[in-house]
Amino acid sequence: MTTTQTYRILEADDIAAYLRERGHADGGDLTVREVSDGNMNRVFIATGPTLGLAVKQALPWVRVAGPSWPMSPSRADAEARAYAQVAAVAPDTIPAILGYDAANYALTMEDMSDLRVLRTVLNEGGSYGDTSRHVGAFVAALSFATSDFGMPSADRKALIAASVSPELCKITEDVVLSEPYIEHEHNHWHPALNDLAAAFRADPVLRTEVADLRHTFMTGAQALLHGDLHTGSIMVGDREGAPVVRVFDPEFSFVGPIGFDLGLYWGNALVSAVRARTLGLDGDHAEQLALSWQAFETEFRRLWPTRVDTFFDDAYLDRFLRRVWSDSLGFAGAEIVRRIIGFAHLTDLTTLPDPGPASREALLLGRALIVNRAELAGPEDVRALLEKK
Amino acid sequence: MTTTQTYRILEADDIAAYLRERGHADGGDLTVREVSDGNMNRVFIATGPTLGLAVKQALPWVRVAGPSWPMSPSRADAEARAYAQVAAVAPDTIPAILGYDAANYALTMEDMSDLRVLRTVLNEGGSYGDTSRHVGAFVAALSFATSDFGMPSADRKALIAASVSPELCKITEDVVLSEPYIEHEHNHWHPALNDLAAAFRADPVLRTEVADLRHTFMTGAQALLHGDLHTGSIMVGDREGAPVVRVFDPEFSFVGPIGFDLGLYWGNALVSAVRARTLGLDGDHAEQLALSWQAFETEFRRLWPTRVDTFFDDAYLDRFLRRVWSDSLGFAGAEIVRRIIGFAHLTDLTTLPDPGPASREALLLGRALIVNRAELAGPEDVRALLEKK
Repeated sequence: MTTTQTYRILEADDIAAYLRERGHADGGDLTVREVSDGNMNRVFIATGPTLGLAVKQALPWVRVAGPSWPMSPSRADAEARAYAQVAAVAPDTIPAILGYDAANYALTMEDMSDLRVLRTVLNEGGSYGDTSRHVGAFVAALSFATSDFGMPSADRKALIAASVSPELCKITEDVVLSEPYIEHEHNHWHPALNDLAAAFRADPVLRTEVADLRHTFMTGAQALLHGDLHTGSIMVGDREGAPVVRVFDPEFSFVGPIGFDLGLYWGNALVSAVRARTLGLDGDHAEQLALSWQAFETEFRRLWPTRVDTFFDDAYLDRFLRRVWSDSLGFAGAEIVRRIIGFAHLTDLTTLPDPGPASREALLLGRALIVNRAELAGPEDVRALLEKK
Repeated sequence: MTTTQTYRILEADDIAAYLRERGHADGGDLTVREVSDGNMNRVFIATGPTLGLAVKQALPWVRVAGPSWPMSPSRADAEARAYAQVAAVAPDTIPAILGYDAANYALTMEDMSDLRVLRTVLNEGGSYGDTSRHVGAFVAALSFATSDFGMPSADRKALIAASVSPELCKITEDVVLSEPYIEHEHNHWHPALNDLAAAFRADPVLRTEVADLRHTFMTGAQALLHGDLHTGSIMVGDREGAPVVRVFDPEFSFVGPIGFDLGLYWGNALVSAVRARTLGLDGDHAEQLALSWQAFETEFRRLWPTRVDTFFDDAYLDRFLRRVWSDSLGFAGAEIVRRIIGFAHLTDLTTLPDPGPASREALLLGRALIVNRAELAGPEDVRALLEKK
């Protein structure tokens, strides 16, 4: 934060002038409204006769908490960096970015207020449509381009150095990858899960496997990640009759293990499948892990011949993808567990008439994914686990 | 290199004034001689009635090649950073550092001209003495202190960012971890090895395993490494009747997989054992892998209760050490292979009356270590491989 002196907190009344100043709008009238929704940042939508834009600004604190919970606004740098990497290789998987104003930690981007958050759509009984194929391709494009396969060695080192994100990584290390397995004031759960929550805290096998995933998260510098790729970080909708999917909010981005991105999505997709089954809904929720993995693998293999470092051979690719697969399963399990007995819960389960039984099924599935991740050979094995209940 | 304007190349005639200016010497007479020995840097020894010091300066090029081969002198920053980390936890394993002058990329340090390079001692038929225990303890102290076990998460991220070392890592990625397995102008070998060199280049199993080690080197950000821990980076001797060991030259230091440091030492120790056997010498060369591993493991386990992050439990420590063990074996094998059919060879073998047979034994040992590293359970298994020839 060496730019504090020029950093100004934007209010709705400032946005029209700000957009003109940045060259994103001409002199025409703009209507601006604040639509801040996530916990961290402010978002404004500006619309005019020929224009629709969003401005997202990171504040030097957590938005919903205020200045008493300071948080470096450099998370916006991480977000802009991730968007820039994806824009170069798969621009249609993310919102269009018109510009990043580093001095004010503000992104000017596509207005997505006509789209809806995937989790909300699912909770209302909607379907995934083509989302999982899109997510798999997004992860493949971002991770290949920023791995030692897609990026020259020296550029990679510069990316690793630029993208370290101590504050946001620490949140994940704590909230996702340790607190649910120890006594912690953040943890809470449905009373029907008292026995399982206690059992998980006393489970030496589970603890060691989670420690292994946690260390992989801390040390496995494979590729630039989105870092928070749950179903609340994806917008879906239709434009002129065509489906539109946008992965957004990559402010937790850093160079880490690829399986963390796939795993977060899978954890959320599997919980949505448990919800759908509990409600007796039709739909292909249980197929989303397979669809996103296939899309990821297909795209990664399609990109492989373009790798900058041909010492890595095809046999190594097979081994590498196998490693990504098992890491992803482990992180999926950790995501499920922390979303049920940790700090932040999933509306997929909390809005069920009786969250207890479905939460129990999901928790046990999460544990099985973590503990058995090396033995689960493919999506069909996960499907079998899910169906066993 | 933002400090170019103040960066001055020191000559022998400058050293006395330089040491006074830096506060390392008073007005007394100093005798200065240049003793530059490695490929990269200049070293001067200054001695006076009450003083003996060394000044090591990194030039903006490779010393033995001259300005036509530019090389960032920031490798001296890496060296100073590594020394500072070790000095805080195991100062007696490295030379005493009196100061680092970042503007001139110059370290002022203990005069070690009374000590001798371990490789030279061994090649002359000398013994390891207590060196391997010392090396194991050095690796444990440095790696524990700079891992996520010994250092808080945010400090670790800062260390990772500060210690990226694109130029020097690229040398290792190329010279150690790919060139020996492909056609490359750097490669050369004894004519008696023509068949094996060709076989190694056409060996798909070996290639994939080396690719795996290479990717681990590029992405496994476990701890700050020495980065070039062969028997030429260790000085040994006696002072007042007590043995003295100093690990030096950590200019290849960066945050990488711990097994790379142990593996380089093991590769060199195993080759010294092949040499000793070839010459029919007595001695405990073949025991050095076991001695350094035991010292490493003992020290790492001794430090474990001091870890800053107790989510990592004892069962995870066992798994982690098992991973370091197998990584180390793989890197040991890669070090052996590259030192026989790659760019830079070992005098341990080249000075033998007939280097052919011993080089062949060592090459096959190297391959076995790489390919079977996951199955070799402990030092006794490596000893058996070594004795099988």
